[in-house]
Amino acid sequence: MTSSEKMTTANTSADMKCIVVQQTFTGKRELKVTTAPKPPAPGDGEILIGVKACGINFNDVLVRYGLLEDSPRPSFVPGFECSGEVLDIGLNVTHVDRGDRVVVLTRFSAWAEQIVVKKDLVFKIPKEMSFREAAVLPVSYLTAYILLFEIGNIKSGQTLLFHSAGGGVGVALTQLSKLVPNLTLMATASSTKFDVLRAHIHYLFEHDMDYTEDIKKIAPEGIDLVLDCMAGDDCERGLALLKFNGKYVMYGTSSLLSWDVKNLFGITKGMTNWWQNDKVSCLRLFQDSKSIHGFNLVQLLSRGSNETRRYLGDIMHKVFVLYKEGKIKPVVDSVFTFDEVNNAIGKLVERKNIGKVVIEPFLNSKTEKVKKKKSSSTPGRQDSSSTSGPDDDDDDKDPEELRHNSSSSQ
Amino acid sequence: MTSSEKMTTANTSADMKCIVVQQTFTGKRELKVTTAPKPPAPGDGEILIGVKACGINFNDVLVRYGLLEDSPRPSFVPGFECSGEVLDIGLNVTHVDRGDRVVVLTRFSAWAEQIVVKKDLVFKIPKEMSFREAAVLPVSYLTAYILLFEIGNIKSGQTLLFHSAGGGVGVALTQLSKLVPNLTLMATASSTKFDVLRAHIHYLFEHDMDYTEDIKKIAPEGIDLVLDCMAGDDCERGLALLKFNGKYVMYGTSSLLSWDVKNLFGITKGMTNWWQNDKVSCLRLFQDSKSIHGFNLVQLLSRGSNETRRYLGDIMHKVFVLYKEGKIKPVVDSVFTFDEVNNAIGKLVERKNIGKVVIEPFLNSKTEKVKKKKSSSTPGRQDSSSTSGPDDDDDDKDPEELRHNSSSSQ
Repeated sequence: MTSSEKMTTANTSADMKCIVVQQTFTGKRELKVTTAPKPPAPGDGEILIGVKACGINFNDVLVRYGLLEDSPRPSFVPGFECSGEVLDIGLNVTHVDRGDRVVVLTRFSAWAEQIVVKKDLVFKIPKEMSFREAAVLPVSYLTAYILLFEIGNIKSGQTLLFHSAGGGVGVALTQLSKLVPNLTLMATASSTKFDVLRAHIHYLFEHDMDYTEDIKKIAPEGIDLVLDCMAGDDCERGLALLKFNGKYVMYGTSSLLSWDVKNLFGITKGMTNWWQNDKVSCLRLFQDSKSIHGFNLVQLLSRGSNETRRYLGDIMHKVFVLYKEGKIKPVVDSVFTFDEVNNAIGKLVERKNIGKVVIEPFLNSKTEKVKKKKSSSTPGRQDSSSTSGPDDDDDDKDPEELRHNSSSSQ
Repeated sequence: MTSSEKMTTANTSADMKCIVVQQTFTGKRELKVTTAPKPPAPGDGEILIGVKACGINFNDVLVRYGLLEDSPRPSFVPGFECSGEVLDIGLNVTHVDRGDRVVVLTRFSAWAEQIVVKKDLVFKIPKEMSFREAAVLPVSYLTAYILLFEIGNIKSGQTLLFHSAGGGVGVALTQLSKLVPNLTLMATASSTKFDVLRAHIHYLFEHDMDYTEDIKKIAPEGIDLVLDCMAGDDCERGLALLKFNGKYVMYGTSSLLSWDVKNLFGITKGMTNWWQNDKVSCLRLFQDSKSIHGFNLVQLLSRGSNETRRYLGDIMHKVFVLYKEGKIKPVVDSVFTFDEVNNAIGKLVERKNIGKVVIEPFLNSKTEKVKKKKSSSTPGRQDSSSTSGPDDDDDDKDPEELRHNSSSSQ
């Protein structure tokens, strides 16, 4: 446990620190640290949590820029996942108790010193799991597990293509795919990360390059499973590369961000406007025996039934089992204070992370951040989290450090 | 074994009987019994089979009317499945030997007294399985198994909607779904078959009726898995009924036939031309966490790789295991001679069958057909095949018999 984790969350003030998405009078959206009243005592079926660490996902980037459908109107507290200690429980809560170390999957509201959440997506964490590891687990590993084993139904001998191999989901996919023997892994990533990723992924391609012809040479019959967090051009490429009976899954729309930026600067003329033209024919899918899937964790959290939430909970338990067996190990790229949230988000926008970026409400700036080592995404070999120590300015890394920076998805 | 099955396939003539799809000078397609030279000795990796019984599928109906994409140009021998005895084997064939009782999955060519096929989709059949049962097994049970367990990944507690419950695939789906506890089964069928089907399917709806509102009342959260062999309106309805994370699978296009007929008679004005307008948005699927699959066995047989054919073979072996365990039991609706092939096809067009229709090359017309009993689609309880006896004209059934008639798919 790091010294930050040992800090007490007890706070005599009635206010607490939290991060909000707000909109200025000129319409500009921004992320800002502010104070707000602490939440009230938990009601029936609710749990009050003192937050220790929060994971950042690519969806948070979309939220920050107003690009995620069904976001609340500003101001609101964003954040989909955090770890912490149970401070209080409401009626009809039996699976956790005060003082328990837990992790939470939630639709927004995670980035605060204290939060009250419904009980069903709060999970006790194994004692050997740090709060930092826990904070980055839910979104990435739930997503990766569902993509590979629930939707993808991936089997020995198959070929898998995914994007943003250095991102949170990318690292989780890489680790989980080791559970299936004899897969051929192909992925895109920033070329600066190839040195680190090469040991775990058979074929690497640069983001923003058209890899279609290269992949056709490697896998002339096509790909069994394409997992796409980018959309846009990668959707067209993914569909074109599918083999008969192959599956294409869209689980993110990261390239919306670059599209939006290009759009803002008026440089979209002549470009294929995929976003208005992404239709596929059911009959064509039938003729070719192919499938297209959408997986949207945020929508499942907001519109899913109790059954859906139980389903997500069941998978979280499977992920914990894999953790205890040493088969997965969350990778923390870097840790920031709440006050540095824009730097943290920036790291994802610039695709500089390998693994996940964390923000912590009780971290003393510049003193207690994660000390990074040469990391590896092999299960059980990562050692990039849970150690406190100085972390210099992120823009001032030595070459060894830079190799840990990566793109991110979800 | 029926007396027809005991008939020898030995034939001293150099010619044999087969069924061909041919086109008249006026462009009209027709199915005709003719004679053709017997096939040559099997080559490397090939097997010569003396055919005993052939299954008819809805795809054969589409072939007959020229509605199946990638059909050969007439004349050709149609037929996707048959059972028989191995008459000779070529080099490098080790898994079967002369005299073995086998079943064959093939892309066309099955409807003849003798056929030569590649070895990889020829399977020895269990000794307790009759040739008639074997002949109707491959297409229906492979399709149903893949739909439920490979694509659908169906799980206890889920809700399933499928069409043509009385057809070959429909009966196989009904039987295989019993392997998963606590499913809710909904299906469409001709109302004349409801009496028979009601015991096995929780909610039945009539073909050609819009069942959307009824199903929404029964399953307000939507359906987990929609298996659609109709396409057209049922595609739109199926997609509209999916719950979050739900799967829609198109595995047939039976309604093409009625569309085509309506089109011929110029009565399509004002109807939604779904066939030219069946596009869905990938982004929409992502937002809703839904999936659309195509499964097309004919295309897999014609364009699939060796790996695909091995995959189909592996599933056939699983189906045989289920048969031996008494968990599935193919249902033969009726048996016709080769000369009666148009009557046999007509039964599927009119959706009068429950289970599968068989044609046999060595059956004496009107004397050796299956004697039908009150059948049931419960695994292990069907007893509608393998018994010889008189079968009167199909248009002259007593009410008990009529209850066995059903719609068909694939």
